[in-house]
Amino acid sequence: MFTKEIKEAAEAFLAQGSKEYVPQLSVDCAILSFHEDQLKVFLLNPNGQTGWMLPGGYVRHQDNLDDAANRVLFERAGLENIFLKQFHTFGSKDRVLGKEVRDMCVKGGIDPALADWVAKRFITVGYYALVNYEEMKPKPDIFTQDFGWFDIHHLPEMMADHSEIIDKSLCTLQKDLLSQPIGMNLLPETFTISDLQKLYESILGRPIDRGNFRKKMLKSNVLKKLEEQKTGQPHRSPYLYTFDETQYKQSLQEEVKVGF
Amino acid sequence: MFTKEIKEAAEAFLAQGSKEYVPQLSVDCAILSFHEDQLKVFLLNPNGQTGWMLPGGYVRHQDNLDDAANRVLFERAGLENIFLKQFHTFGSKDRVLGKEVRDMCVKGGIDPALADWVAKRFITVGYYALVNYEEMKPKPDIFTQDFGWFDIHHLPEMMADHSEIIDKSLCTLQKDLLSQPIGMNLLPETFTISDLQKLYESILGRPIDRGNFRKKMLKSNVLKKLEEQKTGQPHRSPYLYTFDETQYKQSLQEEVKVGF
Repeated sequence: MFTKEIKEAAEAFLAQGSKEYVPQLSVDCAILSFHEDQLKVFLLNPNGQTGWMLPGGYVRHQDNLDDAANRVLFERAGLENIFLKQFHTFGSKDRVLGKEVRDMCVKGGIDPALADWVAKRFITVGYYALVNYEEMKPKPDIFTQDFGWFDIHHLPEMMADHSEIIDKSLCTLQKDLLSQPIGMNLLPETFTISDLQKLYESILGRPIDRGNFRKKMLKSNVLKKLEEQKTGQPHRSPYLYTFDETQYKQSLQEEVKVGF
Repeated sequence: MFTKEIKEAAEAFLAQGSKEYVPQLSVDCAILSFHEDQLKVFLLNPNGQTGWMLPGGYVRHQDNLDDAANRVLFERAGLENIFLKQFHTFGSKDRVLGKEVRDMCVKGGIDPALADWVAKRFITVGYYALVNYEEMKPKPDIFTQDFGWFDIHHLPEMMADHSEIIDKSLCTLQKDLLSQPIGMNLLPETFTISDLQKLYESILGRPIDRGNFRKKMLKSNVLKKLEEQKTGQPHRSPYLYTFDETQYKQSLQEEVKVGF
């Protein structure tokens, strides 16, 4: 059962939603972060559900598709001006939550007719965002009973096709590693090559060769070596690096550099 | 003015479309081919329009999104089992052809109310297909007055945001060159390394270094060198190659090979 407050909020949302949004279209955001040497994804557990889901939302008639994704990031995570990338649109004819939606209405004492628009088949556009773990301020809405970060390689029970959406976001990120720099927002301001390697390994889900990685990274122009060294290390003090923001952003914009 | 036949076909299509399709959603296909050393895109010029457009269509309630794209390829180009890849969803709030649709109805003597569903804002999912120039059998529908292949680097006047959609398909293809083999369907059964290089150059839109390209391609495992050599060449007879279909397909399926 929902509290009176949740019931009224749900009814108000459902009543205006059928007019406010492009029908049968949603966005879902895989918000990714790097913490304790793991690539993590931010998930929500809605009221009355055992499964987890990505934060998502609908597309207002007056909004661009990207605006809707940015709005989800802002409303759910307090994030603005974040690297956000559309990666795939999921359009299986089986993306229909009709039964679940109606059951939830009945359980919550809400007229199921109000939810007819939500109970239809939905096409969802997947976005991924790379965020700084520390800067993220989760703002769950009234329909969320729990939220948290999960290792992307070990997900909890997911609702609908959300584990497929996360898999695809990870595949895209792995592919994007080939043609764009990665790490800004995910790593702290300064980091060692070894920190960067751990990030790559967490994305690829496998160990990579240390020597090759060093060589490749040092050859790229997005890293700036700092004077300081990391202290408090057991053996020796590795050099600290930071991203050259101008080069990094230029590199993100650049046409693909094919190796010939 | 439309002929009676076109008018009736349009009316029938418009009347059933509002029931048959997911609202405000379409697919557009950039059908790409390689001919006379140019990467070409297949375009349609609809009745009564000066501009050109990509072949596209709507998504039936009972169809997966990919089914809709495959149907466009089959219905417009007689193509089945073709490499087809979703590359981006275009969701600007300005993707509205309301005025154009209503003007066309009025000009054609069709009740504009029938076209209300087409006149709304549309979100379109872009796909690209790589096809063999010789195998393509264009089947324009009754609403098409002309069709043809155009050099992707020199497009005619395009309708709506279709030149942006084509640009994005090309950017995606350029990026995909980094992680997947390309050429099957685009090149004839047997070809020289120089033919393959011309294909890459037509996709990248710039010359590439011959030596590097040869070395890189010969190192990949998707090419099979044949016994025969190409004849009738002015200087010497270069070797012919073909794609190793098993390796090629496996390579398309594979996870990205990051270079360390």
